[in-house]
Amino acid sequence: MAKVAVMGFGTVGSGVYDIIKKNGGKISENIGEETSVKYILDIRDFPDHPEKEIFTKEFDRILNDDEVTVAAEVIGGLHPAYEYTKSLLEAGKSVVTSNKELVATYGTELLEIAKENNVSYLFEASVGGGIPIIRPMSQCLAANNIKSIAGILNGTTNYILNEMITKGKSFETALKQAQDKGYAERNPAADVEGHDACRKIAILSSLASGKFVDYNDIPTEGITNITLDDVKYAEKLDGVIKLIGYAKFLDNGKIYSHVAPMVVKNESPIASVNGVFNAIMVNGDCVGDVMFYGKGAGTMPTASAVVADIADCVRNKNRKKTAPWEMPEENIMASGDDEKFSYFIRTTDSAEDVRGAFGKCEFVDNIVKSESAFVTEPLCESDFKEKLSKLKNVVSSIRILA
Amino acid sequence: MAKVAVMGFGTVGSGVYDIIKKNGGKISENIGEETSVKYILDIRDFPDHPEKEIFTKEFDRILNDDEVTVAAEVIGGLHPAYEYTKSLLEAGKSVVTSNKELVATYGTELLEIAKENNVSYLFEASVGGGIPIIRPMSQCLAANNIKSIAGILNGTTNYILNEMITKGKSFETALKQAQDKGYAERNPAADVEGHDACRKIAILSSLASGKFVDYNDIPTEGITNITLDDVKYAEKLDGVIKLIGYAKFLDNGKIYSHVAPMVVKNESPIASVNGVFNAIMVNGDCVGDVMFYGKGAGTMPTASAVVADIADCVRNKNRKKTAPWEMPEENIMASGDDEKFSYFIRTTDSAEDVRGAFGKCEFVDNIVKSESAFVTEPLCESDFKEKLSKLKNVVSSIRILA
Repeated sequence: MAKVAVMGFGTVGSGVYDIIKKNGGKISENIGEETSVKYILDIRDFPDHPEKEIFTKEFDRILNDDEVTVAAEVIGGLHPAYEYTKSLLEAGKSVVTSNKELVATYGTELLEIAKENNVSYLFEASVGGGIPIIRPMSQCLAANNIKSIAGILNGTTNYILNEMITKGKSFETALKQAQDKGYAERNPAADVEGHDACRKIAILSSLASGKFVDYNDIPTEGITNITLDDVKYAEKLDGVIKLIGYAKFLDNGKIYSHVAPMVVKNESPIASVNGVFNAIMVNGDCVGDVMFYGKGAGTMPTASAVVADIADCVRNKNRKKTAPWEMPEENIMASGDDEKFSYFIRTTDSAEDVRGAFGKCEFVDNIVKSESAFVTEPLCESDFKEKLSKLKNVVSSIRILA
Repeated sequence: MAKVAVMGFGTVGSGVYDIIKKNGGKISENIGEETSVKYILDIRDFPDHPEKEIFTKEFDRILNDDEVTVAAEVIGGLHPAYEYTKSLLEAGKSVVTSNKELVATYGTELLEIAKENNVSYLFEASVGGGIPIIRPMSQCLAANNIKSIAGILNGTTNYILNEMITKGKSFETALKQAQDKGYAERNPAADVEGHDACRKIAILSSLASGKFVDYNDIPTEGITNITLDDVKYAEKLDGVIKLIGYAKFLDNGKIYSHVAPMVVKNESPIASVNGVFNAIMVNGDCVGDVMFYGKGAGTMPTASAVVADIADCVRNKNRKKTAPWEMPEENIMASGDDEKFSYFIRTTDSAEDVRGAFGKCEFVDNIVKSESAFVTEPLCESDFKEKLSKLKNVVSSIRILA
């Protein structure tokens, strides 16, 4: 009989509770052990909840209860989530989480503590909501060296871009609509500036490489500057603009990564990922391209991933634990010169000036009359910047996903 | 130190050997135990192989070697794969396989034997080649009741249909081309008649429901009757024709399943799955739609899934085993009347006759002059058949994936 504590009774936490109530029988059957929620930790009162007696405001009750073997940390934010998680792991309890912020910041330390205490620290729900991605990457693709990851990791920005692409709405109108529908926060910066996607690609990169990738080291650009003209130009390139979390694992052991809007060609399965859906394309040296698709957020999808992790903790409580990544001894981040991209560039300079600056390039019929629009050869970053500096007036530039 | 036996040194078997050689370090690190191949079983001689001393023709050497804890059965076919697998499991050795035929036929018995002996019988590679699908479904979606599965489970037929759709080739020409490229066998029946997809949807349905689904109980239709006109009509319906392995898990506990060409609307992510790629869309009650995409066949993708299963066996050797499905006590298959589909129908009968037979329906501009083409309301099978029998001459009918 596994006793679980749910810490944080917000949208995800209440979903975790509901799923264990609703599908508990199936889950218990699956893992061969009955599973139930013994505590719900929240600073708020829930006097009308049918199981109000299991609510507590005292973390120590969970920490000191030997019956509790697994806790779901769905509080969010760094504190007190970090302190709670650390204490629980040190006390020999497994912790599962949807908290990407915490995993991306303190994951290395917490995973090490979990390993030392032979318990699990699992975070399937931290990337891609309910989409199975963490476990498939670490287990099903275990035989592969991962070569690259390219993902639509944020549903809010994908929804906004999709409205711009399919309905010709401006960024501002689409954002407003996303806020009205509850897809975007009142303060949408974490989404539209790319910070959310950045933490997620950092987690995936750490997992793929076995070395901690600090999200602070990943150049991150949001979608706030994307205009309807950019969207229309992308269509001319037979593609769409998507906010992509990108990582390339280079043969020299270094990792190139960025978060930025990119032109994705329509032939890529990522191009047709619409609305609030997420998709993560992983390339392994044996398996080739595999893609995982689904709802990247929302109460029930995210909670279902948290519950799957709880089941995993119960099922594998006696397994020897390994840490999926560790702190690298030296800098593992590649520079922008270690990876090449073709760029799509809009400028008010003449075609002749463009040729003078970039040499070989492919012009695109312009949508805005006064502009030259073109696609460059694959260029490393410094080469790109040097050539770009020769133009007098650049409207926009965007990388193309190969 | 885990010692592995590879049984069958065909395309998959040689890939398994190569991956363990090439990525062995990474795999060993991942599972915390060194892993190497001790035997390769094959009836043929490989005198030029660099490790020719590990080849054997005697199965009993593997069976009786206590050092061997895991065997990869990549012989294919039912016999002697069945007898070997059974003996190994009874001897307390784990077995992993890519053999969908064996899993779909004797899986229930073999899984039960594995459970009794507390060893693993894993088959990630039997469906979708290298695409992680078995483990994600059984573990990551553990908190979900699966509601439906719709998958492109056979790369050969998807390649053929894709050539018809994008290049206007006839079925015969596209099949010939698939054979020339090595995607299709000389005798392509197993692929084009849907038998391969049928075994795979049977395995997925068994996994999703926890009850054995016999592939003999799944109505199966191939793509041999699909013409270029059908393909063009599908385009008019804003869709494409795909060979779909379909399963619906009904609220009454029964399972409706079929393999058949279906019209898939372009808005579905499955519609844009091209070439030899596979994709499996799973709908769970909590997670909603999730899709898994990748190469469904080929030496290295399939072998990488086999090796991941080997790693799982080593990692979880002490875990209490559960059987993912068991033999149902009564018939669990729903009839065609338990599920409704809209049909796209071509007939030489008049529009008036069509209305007389089907009542409400939606006509499609005809491509073939003498025809009426239309989409029905959602109908159960007997209702559909009864209405269809009122038409004098039906050219073709095809279900539409909702």
